[in-house]
Amino acid sequence: MKINKERLWNTLMELGRIGDSSDGGCRRLALSQEEGQARALLRSWAAELDLSCREDQIGNLFFRRHGTDPERRAIAFGSHIDTVHTGGKFDGAYGVIAGLEVMRVMVEEGEKTAAPLELIIWTNEEGARFSPMTMGASVFVGDIDAKFALSRTDSEGITVAEALESISAGGTDVVTLDEFDTFLEVHVEQGPLLVETRQDIGIVTGSFKVHYYVAEIIGVPSHVGPTLMEQRHDALVAASELILAVEKIGLSRGRRGRSNAPHIEVYPNARGVIPSTVRLSLDLRHADEVETEAMISELRSEIAQVESARGVKIKLDKYFEFGPIQSYDCVNDLIRQTADEISLSHRNILTVASHDSVVLMRHMRTGLFFIPSDTGISHNPEEHSTPDQCLKGAELLLNMVNKLAN
Amino acid sequence: MKINKERLWNTLMELGRIGDSSDGGCRRLALSQEEGQARALLRSWAAELDLSCREDQIGNLFFRRHGTDPERRAIAFGSHIDTVHTGGKFDGAYGVIAGLEVMRVMVEEGEKTAAPLELIIWTNEEGARFSPMTMGASVFVGDIDAKFALSRTDSEGITVAEALESISAGGTDVVTLDEFDTFLEVHVEQGPLLVETRQDIGIVTGSFKVHYYVAEIIGVPSHVGPTLMEQRHDALVAASELILAVEKIGLSRGRRGRSNAPHIEVYPNARGVIPSTVRLSLDLRHADEVETEAMISELRSEIAQVESARGVKIKLDKYFEFGPIQSYDCVNDLIRQTADEISLSHRNILTVASHDSVVLMRHMRTGLFFIPSDTGISHNPEEHSTPDQCLKGAELLLNMVNKLAN
Repeated sequence: MKINKERLWNTLMELGRIGDSSDGGCRRLALSQEEGQARALLRSWAAELDLSCREDQIGNLFFRRHGTDPERRAIAFGSHIDTVHTGGKFDGAYGVIAGLEVMRVMVEEGEKTAAPLELIIWTNEEGARFSPMTMGASVFVGDIDAKFALSRTDSEGITVAEALESISAGGTDVVTLDEFDTFLEVHVEQGPLLVETRQDIGIVTGSFKVHYYVAEIIGVPSHVGPTLMEQRHDALVAASELILAVEKIGLSRGRRGRSNAPHIEVYPNARGVIPSTVRLSLDLRHADEVETEAMISELRSEIAQVESARGVKIKLDKYFEFGPIQSYDCVNDLIRQTADEISLSHRNILTVASHDSVVLMRHMRTGLFFIPSDTGISHNPEEHSTPDQCLKGAELLLNMVNKLAN
Repeated sequence: MKINKERLWNTLMELGRIGDSSDGGCRRLALSQEEGQARALLRSWAAELDLSCREDQIGNLFFRRHGTDPERRAIAFGSHIDTVHTGGKFDGAYGVIAGLEVMRVMVEEGEKTAAPLELIIWTNEEGARFSPMTMGASVFVGDIDAKFALSRTDSEGITVAEALESISAGGTDVVTLDEFDTFLEVHVEQGPLLVETRQDIGIVTGSFKVHYYVAEIIGVPSHVGPTLMEQRHDALVAASELILAVEKIGLSRGRRGRSNAPHIEVYPNARGVIPSTVRLSLDLRHADEVETEAMISELRSEIAQVESARGVKIKLDKYFEFGPIQSYDCVNDLIRQTADEISLSHRNILTVASHDSVVLMRHMRTGLFFIPSDTGISHNPEEHSTPDQCLKGAELLLNMVNKLAN
């Protein structure tokens, strides 16, 4: 059985035309009209293969090909089709289309597996429109409550429930963890390590530890003009110092640390008023869990300095955390062995970002592997992997599925 | 003729209850429902005094008491009743209520002036909801086009025209500059100078020079997790450096300089993406026009440094400028002489903020004077002047009006 390289690539590019941002990238936010169109396209492709389709209340899609052994639990694989605002055509979409290609090859070859196969598309992995991220997978495993997820709003106050309805998504099927044996996900690497080290496959053996916080900075509003410079307690100036401090905390840790403060809300955000309040979302990440604690201490001490120098109050609230995940040695061994058999080079890698698989990993047997990002960049229109890189990941997935399902 | 101190204070507090922010301050944004209620209250107070009322297309209100000499042009006075989001009860409102009190005293005493008297309430002085600021006065003098002003939108996309309609404001009266002899405005100082120097009145002899800019910072979006710290071109981190540089430019100039960057828009402003674009509104102010040019040069050199250190592009566009205004020596002499006559201490002062009077000053004879801000702060719920401070400003206004109108 062989992956059809051209079909794989063309299908990926066809999906990428939905939400095409005309600069090579893709803007297909979770549960947007564009994502609704992409869901319809996936359904039509699944129908051509006679896959059965189920949809749960949060909009996760499950496309099943039945197996020959009714006792066997399904081998599942997939990813997500939502993107960030400045997204590319590969993040998420590649894993879904690689899974679809596996189904196509199976159907084409008339290959009947013992275990059922299930292609899964998870809702709102990115969290760019609705927070929290990896929403569909988290509801599926029970990490977050469906009611809570459905009530979350985007920046315009639209809830997840309303957004689902607006694209006729969200079903009544109840799909449970115990239907599945293993979940496999192939994803593009979102950094440069595989390209730098010239490896075909990155086997994700675990994740960074990540702490998300929201810092609320409370200054004193006053008139921008007459207020003397020395009398100010400007929440945005204080936030600027904090943003630079956050960057320093990650920078000083070389390639094993990351730190970000990418989301800000300013009040009143008006030209005539010294800002009184800023809410800054930030995160600290490190390959070594112990080191993240040191990063947090450093953050707290930077906050104390800004508070005292600026006469502002800063409240730091934990928002979310994940990792470090340890993935399944037995699955990783199988990935390694299968890659060797089909002559793909590979290395171990830690994921810095969360993924649907990272959520699933704590509840079921899961394997996650990366193909190289040719440009080393992601969440950017320049995000790119070559047709050959895409082929290799899909071949590995096909061979893994074939082994696990028989 | 005497100002009724208690009535003046109580009326000001009554107006302050509309939009009361329950922390001592006031939130009565331009053309909001609250501002609509305040307009109705002012109309009812004017009706009690048999003042005629006119309203032009941008919603400026003109309440007239006729004079005895049909040849004479009107003596006008007033201010604005809109506030910023974090406003107080005095900025603008005090000047309007002091003007109302002058009308009340005139009616009560049966005093008939030769020239007509006109109390004017200018639309959207603050610019907190709709930009640009001093909108009503600017349309009145012809500095900006009414059509342009009516099409301006707030952060929710509501136009000025729609906002006017929603509170049944905006009339068809055509009121022209040549109807007026002089405009007088009494306003609270928005800084601490009068309190620090223990003076009753600040005679505004001119304004700071103010340059407003919008800086657009263009970075490179990418995934917050896997992107190596050293590979980033984070537009918000670059903006943070710029915000601190802007502060430094003002700080280093002591009490004669100001600099602000109070308004920011970030794209995509999502937790998973390194910010790609930031638009930052900033301004530079100085008492000495020549020195503002040095501040601008310093800003440009800071921008060049941030661009080169961060690998971002920064476009700096002029948005607006005002000043330095030279006010009318003849009016200032009359303010000075009248203050002396009623035993009020006074000093000259430059305004750092713009005001309706600052706009009018370039088109008609105008006088602007300040009363002390007891707390030295403005655009803040703590904004406060005492009943005595309020009384003194209104007494000076009454005596000025009486002189000019007879």
